[in-house]
Amino acid sequence: MPDLKQFLAEIEAEVQQQLELLLPPEEGPEARLYAAMRYSALAGGKRLRPALFAATLAAFGQSRTAWMPFAAALEMIHTYSLIHDDLPAMDNDDFRRGRPSCHRAFDEASAILAGDALLTHAFAVMLSVPAEPERLCRAVALVARLAGCGGMVAGQAAELASSPESIDRPRLDEIYRGKTGALLACAVLSAAHLCGAGERELAALELYSYQSGRAFQIIDDVLDVQGDSALLGKNTGSDVKNKTRTYASLLGCYAARAEALLSAEKALQALEIFDTRSDLLRSFPEFFVSRDH
Amino acid sequence: MPDLKQFLAEIEAEVQQQLELLLPPEEGPEARLYAAMRYSALAGGKRLRPALFAATLAAFGQSRTAWMPFAAALEMIHTYSLIHDDLPAMDNDDFRRGRPSCHRAFDEASAILAGDALLTHAFAVMLSVPAEPERLCRAVALVARLAGCGGMVAGQAAELASSPESIDRPRLDEIYRGKTGALLACAVLSAAHLCGAGERELAALELYSYQSGRAFQIIDDVLDVQGDSALLGKNTGSDVKNKTRTYASLLGCYAARAEALLSAEKALQALEIFDTRSDLLRSFPEFFVSRDH
Repeated sequence: MPDLKQFLAEIEAEVQQQLELLLPPEEGPEARLYAAMRYSALAGGKRLRPALFAATLAAFGQSRTAWMPFAAALEMIHTYSLIHDDLPAMDNDDFRRGRPSCHRAFDEASAILAGDALLTHAFAVMLSVPAEPERLCRAVALVARLAGCGGMVAGQAAELASSPESIDRPRLDEIYRGKTGALLACAVLSAAHLCGAGERELAALELYSYQSGRAFQIIDDVLDVQGDSALLGKNTGSDVKNKTRTYASLLGCYAARAEALLSAEKALQALEIFDTRSDLLRSFPEFFVSRDH
Repeated sequence: MPDLKQFLAEIEAEVQQQLELLLPPEEGPEARLYAAMRYSALAGGKRLRPALFAATLAAFGQSRTAWMPFAAALEMIHTYSLIHDDLPAMDNDDFRRGRPSCHRAFDEASAILAGDALLTHAFAVMLSVPAEPERLCRAVALVARLAGCGGMVAGQAAELASSPESIDRPRLDEIYRGKTGALLACAVLSAAHLCGAGERELAALELYSYQSGRAFQIIDDVLDVQGDSALLGKNTGSDVKNKTRTYASLLGCYAARAEALLSAEKALQALEIFDTRSDLLRSFPEFFVSRDH
């Protein structure tokens, strides 16, 4: 098996470098906006979406070099969603990745605009990579569908709209599919589209993405109960405090971990049609269920 | 000259029909999000950006039928910008188009998410129209550039960041270029890209867009001082109340109108390289400077 830790470290450095280049410098009358964009986007994080994107390219035997701006754009979309999620009107979180969240470090208006600008800029960046135009259109259209009201934003809205008591397992799976799964699927499936993947491969990778996302999100919930806030870089216990319904609160931490393992298994099974070049992809679900931060 | 009033009425009906079809129905756990999106997007308005898009297609002798979803997507982007602009942390406007603004009719979280979803959905819709993929990529990339931190969002940020006293004419022109000009340029130039326009045509249309946008925005400022709030569907006097620096406050209403007329003239001159098929485009600057709402 390939060394995932080494791979993630490489991707992290490459994404940081891309974001440095792609985000506007802190100059001119809009300097505060650019500073807010850079503050949040360059704050680090695991860069999982770019890593999944690059691992999928590897599964198709494709070099990632020319397409790293696309990977960085996926991280801009992830960052925008975190900035808006943290706003007082949403989750009202003061900390993110061990630092004040964007609206605390700047102000609410700057945080709203920084999110808007990161989302829009991501589309400009994705559409600028050298690729066969028809495949590129398909890849970017998929990202737009899954990041918007056909995926991520829908998941956030469904969570906001549901009273905790009304959330049962099927509803929770639906929320996780949108909140977490959709953006992981963006990363995997956009890479597959750029590589000209066929229907059968796309279906397998879709299943892989959503099961991996479910495993990831369930462990996230468990870590919010059992994890170390210093290691995680954010306050724990927020789900209990906000009475958020999660797998951990619904089933207890052990049973929730069991659910995560079952999803990891399904994700691995979905990859059976691929050859050994997909070994990097195979290492993600295991990482998701064994992580402590 | 073609009948602009008739043309605008046609476009208004077609855009309304497209938005009805393209926006998700108010169903499921995300019903409130979809309701907020529909509430703001279907509230009417002049639909100027779709109209400029369609008029540009006409200037190239191109039918608009297959591309009206693209036009509607431009209106989604405009709507998202209004929803976020009206938020308490931004302009804090309670009314829009004669009705409570989105965050008043729903709530702040729904308004933030509805804006995010409209922006993202717009990209999915634009990328779904039948067009030559290379031209489509170019058109959508341009929209992403001009709607984001290379245009509209930059204009909003520059306005927020500038103390009114510090805004002189060059700075004000820069802010108008972003705030209003950029999205009009999106409409005109994306249509031109879809039609395969050359460098010379693109440069002329860019000049046309920004001068038209300047004329439009200056008259907007004048109407905020002299206009009829019932006719406008929003409170007047907000610029004075918020101490916003505008051409009207900088030069007075008469001199501001003169500036708008000069920009309208420049916009018309820019169209000289086009034939009579651009007559619809020619009628916009005149409309912008003579409107009373």
